[in-house]
Amino acid sequence: MTERVRLASIGLGRWARVLARGAQRGSVIGLASCFSRSAERRAAFQEEFGLPRAAATLDQLLADPEIEGVLVTTPNDTHKTVILESLDAGKAVYTDKPIAHTMEDAGEIARAAIASGRPFAVGHSARRLGGHRAMKQWIETGKVGRVSLAEANFSNERGLELTTNTWRWFADKSPGGAMIQLGVHHADNLQYLLGPVAAVSSHARKLYTRAEVPDAVMSILEFESGPLGYLGTGWASPGVYQLRLQGTEANLFYDLDFNNWDESHLVDSKSSLVSQAYRESVRPPVDIPATDMFREQLEEFALAIRGEAEIEVGALEAIRALAVVHAALESSQNNGQAVAVAPMVERAGLR
Amino acid sequence: MTERVRLASIGLGRWARVLARGAQRGSVIGLASCFSRSAERRAAFQEEFGLPRAAATLDQLLADPEIEGVLVTTPNDTHKTVILESLDAGKAVYTDKPIAHTMEDAGEIARAAIASGRPFAVGHSARRLGGHRAMKQWIETGKVGRVSLAEANFSNERGLELTTNTWRWFADKSPGGAMIQLGVHHADNLQYLLGPVAAVSSHARKLYTRAEVPDAVMSILEFESGPLGYLGTGWASPGVYQLRLQGTEANLFYDLDFNNWDESHLVDSKSSLVSQAYRESVRPPVDIPATDMFREQLEEFALAIRGEAEIEVGALEAIRALAVVHAALESSQNNGQAVAVAPMVERAGLR
Repeated sequence: MTERVRLASIGLGRWARVLARGAQRGSVIGLASCFSRSAERRAAFQEEFGLPRAAATLDQLLADPEIEGVLVTTPNDTHKTVILESLDAGKAVYTDKPIAHTMEDAGEIARAAIASGRPFAVGHSARRLGGHRAMKQWIETGKVGRVSLAEANFSNERGLELTTNTWRWFADKSPGGAMIQLGVHHADNLQYLLGPVAAVSSHARKLYTRAEVPDAVMSILEFESGPLGYLGTGWASPGVYQLRLQGTEANLFYDLDFNNWDESHLVDSKSSLVSQAYRESVRPPVDIPATDMFREQLEEFALAIRGEAEIEVGALEAIRALAVVHAALESSQNNGQAVAVAPMVERAGLR
Repeated sequence: MTERVRLASIGLGRWARVLARGAQRGSVIGLASCFSRSAERRAAFQEEFGLPRAAATLDQLLADPEIEGVLVTTPNDTHKTVILESLDAGKAVYTDKPIAHTMEDAGEIARAAIASGRPFAVGHSARRLGGHRAMKQWIETGKVGRVSLAEANFSNERGLELTTNTWRWFADKSPGGAMIQLGVHHADNLQYLLGPVAAVSSHARKLYTRAEVPDAVMSILEFESGPLGYLGTGWASPGVYQLRLQGTEANLFYDLDFNNWDESHLVDSKSSLVSQAYRESVRPPVDIPATDMFREQLEEFALAIRGEAEIEVGALEAIRALAVVHAALESSQNNGQAVAVAPMVERAGLR
């Protein structure tokens, strides 16, 4: 490939900048344009990342024949409109996770993406972390044995900081709070490692946040393959990112320093993955392959546009992750009664 | 106190020996007699611990006027008979956890113990671990802030080793498997730290053990005080003992090397408790007070017989822990639907 893939950023908040920095760590992507409703943000983004131009309207950006694909980081509840318009305009689409805020929107997006035949990627980047790649290898090569328990937690303090100025405050825009913003990552990671979740039992609490959404959600995941999973997520404490596997041959403990989350080229080096054998007190570190999750997912998307890569996380994976979130929310309103995931995925038109 | 408190061991398996070693690390307790149905075990125990005598029958031991209290480590389903006879004979009673295998037996034991007016202690020793004492202090002094999530796991490989020669194989003698043998510890620890559990949602799996009981149980605990708790327990992996708290001021991570569990005077030194503040990558170790849980609980029991100590874990605490186990088992047979704990405690005649 000689020419950079020309992508445009839509929605120019904090996350667009994290992704732009990831894209610019490589030489596959050329950020060619951007759009936000705020002229000020457009100008600032264009200058920070040295873009040749910025679009005054979404229509203008989508009419630009130079643009091959778009990077969508608008609020979750606007994904459907932006993505459907982008696909209609012939653009490939990368969208931040979750694919949408509701299963209904997610289904519409998925069906439109599949019908378009264009590359469609969802930013469940976390499965690309070196620690998760190593865990997957330990499972596949039998080193962890047969897994019985998998426990994951992703938490931070965001719930304590929310104000009505941000869409994440509102239950209709970000249902589930910490669960849909953070937990959805592990909903994908755990299914990446152990296969589809059959059902979810959950309890949710709004304890210390003033926002409309829960700041503590605990879920038990029943995997189709047999093991049980736990997914804990909070929005009212220092940042936690952990995933633990217990197997008949070994345990694995992964612990990532959340303070480095945005710097995906550094985060593997700030993470700890150790293994535990029977009757051994020492837990030897497991080699973590160096990865750069944000850069890699964007370059994979860009190369897929040129037919040179396959999308790892598309509509199906993203909908399976979102279905775990919504099954959890439904269960939490029903006293923990398990909610089946497969029917939710099927209602979205996938399986 | 000048004279040692004369105690007798009933049920002379592995655990009786762990406790006897704990008692003999101090000078409060004099092990004065012992009983097992096996004459061989009686002789071996008497010799190993230098006991002045052994009893040929339980009646003979209980008729011995020298004996002030008994240490019961017989199988869970025999606790009721042994404990009621011991109380009838005028002895104070310490029993290993769980207080019994069923809520019905636990209730009978509790009512008999209370009616007797004699010291009655249950071996929920783990709350005495230095790490849990330090966590309790961090909660009480506000250093952890308001807790939103508490996650605990106690697992080992016992389920893979069980045979029909041990009572733990059988569902009617050890209902819940890993949950009643290991999980019950954290059911007490978590209530020690955060107060009574209101309800439990749970899923249980019999995955890799050949025994009749589950080897993977996950439960979500709804605390009356507001936070959510997670209790994971497995019987098919290397040993895990962890408890994590997430608070609005700090997180705490406790990790104990299960290989040293039996040596309670060493286990604190093989444990790690670290704290986490906002936006700090370094997790400073928290000082853990040196404790010796098995020795301390037995000496407390012994001194209570002389009116010189109060029992920390009696019938109420033990029944609250067992109720969490049985609420979990009931929930796991009802698709995760939350089961209320208080009515179970009240049915046992306590509250």
